[in-house]
Amino acid sequence: MRLLRLAALVLALGGTAMTASSDEGMWLLNDPPRELLKTRHGFDLTQPWLDRAMRANVRLNSGGSGGFVSPDGLLVTNHHVAADAIQKLSTPTRDLYRDGFLAATRDQELKCPDLELNVLQSITDVTAQVNAAVKAGAPPAEAAAARRAAMAKIEKESLDSTKLRSDVVVLYNGGFYHLYRYKKFTDVRLVFAPEQAVAGFGGDVDNFEYPRMSLDVSFFRAYENGQPAKTPDHFRWNPDGPKEGDLVFVTGHPGTTNRLETLAKLRHRRDHTLPYTLARLRALEAATHQYAERGPEERRQAATDHHRYANARKAFSGQYQGLLDPGVMAQKQVAERELHAALVVAAYHERQRPGVADAKVLAAPGEYLDQLDRIAAAQAAHAGFEKAHLLLETGHAFASELFVIARHLVRMGEELPKPSPERLREYRDSNLESLRLQVFSPAPLYAPLERVKLQTSLTFLAEQLGGDHPVVRAALAGKNPAGRADELVRGTKLTDVAARKALADGGKAALDASTDPLVVLARAVDAEARKLRARFEAELEEPERQAYGELSRLRFAALGKSVAPDATQTLRLAFGVVKGYEVDGEKLPFHTTLGTAFDRHARLGGAEPFDLPARWTDGKSKLDLATPYNFVSTADTIGGNSGSPVLNRAGELVGINFDRNRHGLVRNFVYTEVQARHVAVHSRAVLEALRKLYPAETLVKELTGG
Amino acid sequence: MRLLRLAALVLALGGTAMTASSDEGMWLLNDPPRELLKTRHGFDLTQPWLDRAMRANVRLNSGGSGGFVSPDGLLVTNHHVAADAIQKLSTPTRDLYRDGFLAATRDQELKCPDLELNVLQSITDVTAQVNAAVKAGAPPAEAAAARRAAMAKIEKESLDSTKLRSDVVVLYNGGFYHLYRYKKFTDVRLVFAPEQAVAGFGGDVDNFEYPRMSLDVSFFRAYENGQPAKTPDHFRWNPDGPKEGDLVFVTGHPGTTNRLETLAKLRHRRDHTLPYTLARLRALEAATHQYAERGPEERRQAATDHHRYANARKAFSGQYQGLLDPGVMAQKQVAERELHAALVVAAYHERQRPGVADAKVLAAPGEYLDQLDRIAAAQAAHAGFEKAHLLLETGHAFASELFVIARHLVRMGEELPKPSPERLREYRDSNLESLRLQVFSPAPLYAPLERVKLQTSLTFLAEQLGGDHPVVRAALAGKNPAGRADELVRGTKLTDVAARKALADGGKAALDASTDPLVVLARAVDAEARKLRARFEAELEEPERQAYGELSRLRFAALGKSVAPDATQTLRLAFGVVKGYEVDGEKLPFHTTLGTAFDRHARLGGAEPFDLPARWTDGKSKLDLATPYNFVSTADTIGGNSGSPVLNRAGELVGINFDRNRHGLVRNFVYTEVQARHVAVHSRAVLEALRKLYPAETLVKELTGG
Repeated sequence: MRLLRLAALVLALGGTAMTASSDEGMWLLNDPPRELLKTRHGFDLTQPWLDRAMRANVRLNSGGSGGFVSPDGLLVTNHHVAADAIQKLSTPTRDLYRDGFLAATRDQELKCPDLELNVLQSITDVTAQVNAAVKAGAPPAEAAAARRAAMAKIEKESLDSTKLRSDVVVLYNGGFYHLYRYKKFTDVRLVFAPEQAVAGFGGDVDNFEYPRMSLDVSFFRAYENGQPAKTPDHFRWNPDGPKEGDLVFVTGHPGTTNRLETLAKLRHRRDHTLPYTLARLRALEAATHQYAERGPEERRQAATDHHRYANARKAFSGQYQGLLDPGVMAQKQVAERELHAALVVAAYHERQRPGVADAKVLAAPGEYLDQLDRIAAAQAAHAGFEKAHLLLETGHAFASELFVIARHLVRMGEELPKPSPERLREYRDSNLESLRLQVFSPAPLYAPLERVKLQTSLTFLAEQLGGDHPVVRAALAGKNPAGRADELVRGTKLTDVAARKALADGGKAALDASTDPLVVLARAVDAEARKLRARFEAELEEPERQAYGELSRLRFAALGKSVAPDATQTLRLAFGVVKGYEVDGEKLPFHTTLGTAFDRHARLGGAEPFDLPARWTDGKSKLDLATPYNFVSTADTIGGNSGSPVLNRAGELVGINFDRNRHGLVRNFVYTEVQARHVAVHSRAVLEALRKLYPAETLVKELTGG
Repeated sequence: MRLLRLAALVLALGGTAMTASSDEGMWLLNDPPRELLKTRHGFDLTQPWLDRAMRANVRLNSGGSGGFVSPDGLLVTNHHVAADAIQKLSTPTRDLYRDGFLAATRDQELKCPDLELNVLQSITDVTAQVNAAVKAGAPPAEAAAARRAAMAKIEKESLDSTKLRSDVVVLYNGGFYHLYRYKKFTDVRLVFAPEQAVAGFGGDVDNFEYPRMSLDVSFFRAYENGQPAKTPDHFRWNPDGPKEGDLVFVTGHPGTTNRLETLAKLRHRRDHTLPYTLARLRALEAATHQYAERGPEERRQAATDHHRYANARKAFSGQYQGLLDPGVMAQKQVAERELHAALVVAAYHERQRPGVADAKVLAAPGEYLDQLDRIAAAQAAHAGFEKAHLLLETGHAFASELFVIARHLVRMGEELPKPSPERLREYRDSNLESLRLQVFSPAPLYAPLERVKLQTSLTFLAEQLGGDHPVVRAALAGKNPAGRADELVRGTKLTDVAARKALADGGKAALDASTDPLVVLARAVDAEARKLRARFEAELEEPERQAYGELSRLRFAALGKSVAPDATQTLRLAFGVVKGYEVDGEKLPFHTTLGTAFDRHARLGGAEPFDLPARWTDGKSKLDLATPYNFVSTADTIGGNSGSPVLNRAGELVGINFDRNRHGLVRNFVYTEVQARHVAVHSRAVLEALRKLYPAETLVKELTGG
């Protein structure tokens, strides 16, 4: 009763931001929006439905989602999520990324060098344990260390007792800590990928746009002990797909949203983080584009890197336009003021009750303002070292796979002798197997491309900090960025996996003695990088966790869990309605058709990025051109949801999410469903293409349970 | 005698920087390196040779050089210099930039909408007049105004008495002021342009590289009173071109070098100006590239803009690598210390003379250090407002032709009622005809491209100054950059030349009353922009001019004019030797051949930027593939030298300069001839292509005097 009354009061104050009057929400699977689904859409969310959604969903370590679609470990995801693995399986004479791939039989399926799948098995609230480890009033650095140790301890105990990958996840920016346990697959094989031109039709022009015409899907198979994994929990492939007005669900692993962040934090993102991020991405996108122009082999080598930078640039550009939109910032300000007003009103009502002291009931709204101030102060502190932290510790100054390997080796030498809870978090026991998969990956690396990326990022380092900065001098070691990158890449032996293993096996002594120039560089900047990491944790992360923890407590006390936590690369459930929308008076349909792809191809002269492979242009007459191709719904998604299964009420797969439109780019900060949509490949289009254009009878049979 | 003794002493101190032991120098035509040419190359530079070089050379207002090559006003330049005019003559159905153009007869020659040629007629030293206007000890703002007024007065008097375009040029960064008088042509017609793919073969990949294979030439004709201009001073087209070891001359209009700048100034460029410049160019290059990807017509519209940004980005990237090279900075530091040492030594020798007071002879070295300090202080001041100045006054925040027009209109309303010497410099009487040619140009403008560039630059403005900066708020007027750019371009009427003329005719009253959104924007930011310009002049430009003036005086007293002034977009004479060089042990020949272009095309699969037009691939067998195509020499060039005639000892044209190699990018700061080369199209290749591939008999006949 009290909650309802408060919500009504908030509404009376003019707010909408905190009320569940929309399809907003990337909900936790252990705290699903049952009532909301019931009242808004008349849908009963059952436990079996949820359990299957959890166990049939997959997170890929390349940064996306997918879903099992057969009992034999067959998995669908996006082509652009699979791209990293496809690229690593390609060679100068066999370009699977450009030309596509189909395993005619299971023994032709191609084992990926370093792809890992995580399948969620359980969620446990460990908030009390984590917070208990942090002494009240402890200095931030001490508090951060205690919290990190508590999380690592919980993870280690879980790993030891269950053998499952165990991660403590920070929710509500510090409001809750949940332990996620995953079954892990590291033997993953490529089954099917279409040609890049058809998977990424429209390229950067159409990315984050709609109408869309992309077959952005690929299939893998998970293996265990050399055999296809048994996946009794999987999604049935619905051959008809959704109709307009249908309720659909998107289950996947959205990466990051910032909806619960304070106005001060968003201003910091707008005026510091995003301008820096855009400058960095532009430099790398341009460098990889220029590298690709050198010739066909360079183009092949740089293809996935270039796409990744371009995609990120477009997403962050949309975010930046959102934060520069006075309407969006005003909306965030209103939300902050409304919550404060709600706390004041609650205090007022409390005071009406007999025996309640004034001082106590007024504490909550004051506390709320104090925590906002605390977060604002942390931003001001962060501004003083953010660039240096991102460049040195996050590693933006060294955009090279080889450097990443060198640093991991140096730090493994340093960290592994320590007890797990005392290590830097990525070296905790529960993460070691995944880390080693990366560090010792036999995936090909291209020295000239590494050189270009390293030159670009070292140049960016100098641009950001200035030519005389001690860190820049240390990184450049008496050369300019071009000469330094050349020297580092020419001199390193880390392209050889055996050399990496020898260094790792030799431990700290071997790494201290190594003269490999990348190892020397990683050592040279490590003290400064660690110092910046410590500052980040003590001056930003820990104060924020504490403050957001308090803010969450106040919010829930006043309004309940009416808002889902921000995205955290963990499994979430979103829902929405399949429907078109209008832009500048033009009505955009809820789905495109295969025919529209050929129309767009023809209208734009078929030049890249609107080219289609010969299989498609030659095979056009075989297709039913009216087949729905891509469709949109109002469900709440963000980057990381790529490859997420789109489900119907029956829990069947009706689509594969692969993008959102440009109106949806602002969803990092505010949900809107007027024009914002996610975009998915229609389940029927996949079957139509596989049947008519690819010799994929076996795959179709497995999908349709035939 | 005294000078020689000092030079010997400087050499004894280990210096080379100030001695003419190389082919360094972009020399003034009224102060040519006669002795140097005699001693180094045994060449007698005669006055007739110089006079023809002056009157046959042309500066294009699109920012390059060219030379008359027939008595009938025929002019050769680079295709990439002509590109702006070619683009403006193109339409959606007639893409002369992509497809090339040849006027079969004179009446088919195409009049360019806003191309202006300047041909230098005379040079007069006006240093004393300019400096006399500035009272000793006047406050910088007052001094700057007095200097500006004196320059405008000299120009106005010259214009009135000679009817020639008259510009006072600042040399040695303030050491000298010379009056340059130009004959002006504004009726200029396109005669020949090759296809862009062959003119810019290799694109961004090969730009600033060698070996090269580009036909980067175009021909215009200057007209007077509707008839081909009479150009008795022109260069004879040498049909054989140069051989290895030949002495050649490059006469043209180099834009900017920074060789006489102090170390403090170069540090400022490295740590402030260049990082900002690179960030800006990357944003615009990416935006125009993304626009071009939308389809064939967008690609056509954005082609020259995109090339311009890419070219600048590559040039400035090379400069930045140069300033991050500790060797380059050390060389600049040595040069500064050497000059100081020379002044100390000179003072020491003076003191030996009877009757010279100590205080006086020691003044020069102290004065030198004082001026260095003054320049360093000006950099520190500049750092505080440089970005705002570039964004608002230089107009980087508004990368739109339409905005440039709007601002000129607003300022013409403001400035023209004032007496010429009191106006902002670009509105002085002697410049008005050229300015009006631009403002009222009927050249096509593309609203969607303007919108994209404006959105990009408004976004860049916010990135640089932050979302809450008053200037950003004023420019965005309550929208985000995307929405604001849309509103501005949708609303403006300035695409219509008649609308511009009506506003200009209406003067200040009409402009104050205008509701055209771009005019409103130009008005809204004008006060702040002018304030920044005043700061720039008072806090940087004037102090620098005074300080560099003193530094020049001290340098000349000690060493004479052993160094040419930095480039200033005015006519200069450079010389060098045609010769190849080595990179990583590989010997690069002094010229490429037509055959190597076909080889490179084939080896890289013929994909862009290594595509060749059908005329070339189909006509390959007609060509003598051994024909020299592009060649290199050690002559000292920089951006702005594009299109410069390359001459032999006889003053005949043997090539058309179009680029320098990447080793030459550092030439902004230091001259080197170990590997640095400029690159030119060989005169023989032009004739071979015109004869065999294009139906250009008439043009060949005119060139060869047949």
